[in-house]
Amino acid sequence: MKITEIVLTPVAFRDPPLLNSAGVHEPWALRTIVEIHTDEGISGVGETYGDIAHIERLQQVIPSLIGLDAFALGPMHQRVAAALEGVTGFDTHGLTGKFSAPGTIDRVYSPFEVACLDIQGKAIGRPVVDLLGGAVRTEIPYSAYLFYKWAGHPTSKLGDEQPDQWGAALDPAGVVAQAKQLIDEYGFKSIKLKGGVFPPEQEIEAIKALREAFPGTPLRLDPNAAWTPETGIRVAQELDGIVEYLEDPSPEIEGMAEVAKVAPMPLATNMCVVSFEHLAPSVAQNAVQVILSDHHYWGGLTRSAKLAAICETFGIGLSMHSNSHLGISLAAMTHLAAATPNLTYACDTHYPWNAADDVVKPGVLSFKDGSLTVPSGPGLGIELDRDVLARLAENYRTCGILKRDDTSYMQKFNPEYEKRRPRW
Amino acid sequence: MKITEIVLTPVAFRDPPLLNSAGVHEPWALRTIVEIHTDEGISGVGETYGDIAHIERLQQVIPSLIGLDAFALGPMHQRVAAALEGVTGFDTHGLTGKFSAPGTIDRVYSPFEVACLDIQGKAIGRPVVDLLGGAVRTEIPYSAYLFYKWAGHPTSKLGDEQPDQWGAALDPAGVVAQAKQLIDEYGFKSIKLKGGVFPPEQEIEAIKALREAFPGTPLRLDPNAAWTPETGIRVAQELDGIVEYLEDPSPEIEGMAEVAKVAPMPLATNMCVVSFEHLAPSVAQNAVQVILSDHHYWGGLTRSAKLAAICETFGIGLSMHSNSHLGISLAAMTHLAAATPNLTYACDTHYPWNAADDVVKPGVLSFKDGSLTVPSGPGLGIELDRDVLARLAENYRTCGILKRDDTSYMQKFNPEYEKRRPRW
Repeated sequence: MKITEIVLTPVAFRDPPLLNSAGVHEPWALRTIVEIHTDEGISGVGETYGDIAHIERLQQVIPSLIGLDAFALGPMHQRVAAALEGVTGFDTHGLTGKFSAPGTIDRVYSPFEVACLDIQGKAIGRPVVDLLGGAVRTEIPYSAYLFYKWAGHPTSKLGDEQPDQWGAALDPAGVVAQAKQLIDEYGFKSIKLKGGVFPPEQEIEAIKALREAFPGTPLRLDPNAAWTPETGIRVAQELDGIVEYLEDPSPEIEGMAEVAKVAPMPLATNMCVVSFEHLAPSVAQNAVQVILSDHHYWGGLTRSAKLAAICETFGIGLSMHSNSHLGISLAAMTHLAAATPNLTYACDTHYPWNAADDVVKPGVLSFKDGSLTVPSGPGLGIELDRDVLARLAENYRTCGILKRDDTSYMQKFNPEYEKRRPRW
Repeated sequence: MKITEIVLTPVAFRDPPLLNSAGVHEPWALRTIVEIHTDEGISGVGETYGDIAHIERLQQVIPSLIGLDAFALGPMHQRVAAALEGVTGFDTHGLTGKFSAPGTIDRVYSPFEVACLDIQGKAIGRPVVDLLGGAVRTEIPYSAYLFYKWAGHPTSKLGDEQPDQWGAALDPAGVVAQAKQLIDEYGFKSIKLKGGVFPPEQEIEAIKALREAFPGTPLRLDPNAAWTPETGIRVAQELDGIVEYLEDPSPEIEGMAEVAKVAPMPLATNMCVVSFEHLAPSVAQNAVQVILSDHHYWGGLTRSAKLAAICETFGIGLSMHSNSHLGISLAAMTHLAAATPNLTYACDTHYPWNAADDVVKPGVLSFKDGSLTVPSGPGLGIELDRDVLARLAENYRTCGILKRDDTSYMQKFNPEYEKRRPRW
């Protein structure tokens, strides 16, 4: 079953003004939809980043993938590596850690692999989870992903924003209200707060308010490396017994290792261990106790399954990271999670913030009690909505955004804003 | 596609008197052929150890596998683990390292997994290698596996043996002659000598004789942990620049780590790192630089692929171990090797010593220039010869051997023989 054509469709979809340690989400988030066609008439889809430099790298490798068998994933990885010729991408928003040449290969390879697994599943009449070893669970719990946010995107200056459906969350009460809103709608049973926005004392207060409002619900805080190791240690001690893990308190493996020596809870990362070559130094220093896997940068689903085996072997916990994404990624994450025995934490997802613009036809990806049922149809078990895809592609052409840049967007409204890491 | 029946057929096949650090191979080697049948009429085969205690453990888990989908490998592993209830097997011959409860699960699970992959491949019309990510190579190099050996099995006492087709190899000249015979017949381009039989000086001489007879051919020596770390260090220094790696010079991770600190070549193991839980302590001490993987004890082909990913991630070389085996195992090893990018050494195989009794119909597993071509038929791409299988099953019923015991067989002819590890 030979690959005959690969079509990239960059898309833009509405995104609320979610705050983080690098700035604030712009009104449009970008992704690229990848469609692979084969000579047997079976096609598959993948989803990946939409930054222009990443799209150019995808385009760079496509010619070398034409003619390849859709089951030849190992050879595909080798061809991607060869076509990239050692190029190292970089993370324009600075939220998913530093790139490396091997990490760049895995980021480019990922959507092609997912699309091929979709094809394989359709070809054999099986869901993708069966290609990953079968489902060890069929209900995949996700977490409520809370963000500090403005009431809505400002029209011209801070203060003139029209509130969106979620409204503002800029203090503990706002964070608790947002959690209630998300949990009411989706039934989530774990809560993650994106921090790194306000001084740590305020974010500790928000977590304590969540603990009071949701006793017994597992909580997490993720400041995206906004703190020095000293601050990270202080926050960790303050949150002892309150969070199940603390995400990326401080930058780099060394900074995390320093915090980990003292922190009473596991530290998690999706920033300092984001590629296979980061694992050995992290293990040597016991820098992180939980890895937030992400098939978009760990090289697709089969390589993420290998990451899971490494985590199990080295006694590292496993959870799942997300960036702003659509339903193709959500389906892929769900199949992977279903096949991964040691994925014992609820997965992160931005999906509720962007679901209104999904390119996947509704029905399959419906949360119940905070969980998704693994799609049971062949392949990813989802169907593209071509009308929505066309609309989102048109958004991309007109929105004027070519790469994610949370910092510049923040500076538009707050010219004093400086990106600093660590900030506190 | 549900599993409806699992049939175990213990078999015995002729084995020459191959010497090792635990004694000498008995006239019969044991294996178990595993056949899994499904409700769609597709069946698959696997091959595993034939020791009675292992067969009993296989039987113990079978009831829990009936009704399972043949693609549900993760759930199958969980069911095997549950059915074994924490039992820890043990290695009667002492040549593949110490067992653990997780290692016992993987040993029992392995043939069922291979049989299911055979079924999956047949169901989708693809070779097993395609279920492992596709072939990154199609010709799999194997090594000439040399053994010190008696001329043939003694009739009643040492000295009365009728020479078999290979004759004796008890000194450097005999070892070189055996290498020539194997290389003439199979075309092998790497050589491994099983050592631990004679004092290390004699085995060093044999390796040096091989180096002289086969300049440029990669060489390996494997004394099966017969040496103290002091002796291991001495041999390693003597063989500097002569062997590509030195296998299991000394017992346990600690002993290997001691040798590794000084040894100028990589150390390889199939004895001290034989299960996933051995990896973290070995990595922490840099005890071994090459792991000799073996799908029979690393939990089948997909878990061996995960071991390969761990080796790649932690900078550990990867080669492949064998025990006495038949063609089902050889086919499985070949599919795995074909899909494993970082398997850069020629694989070990005992196959030439036992090929005359193979249960696999001839044709597919034919060495050319020391390599096997990956079978291209669906599944493992092999066909059972039912007549041979029946003959080997009858051998098992009549041979009187229920477990491998190289030491007792040696003591039959040399009552003074003591199993000692380390011996020198």
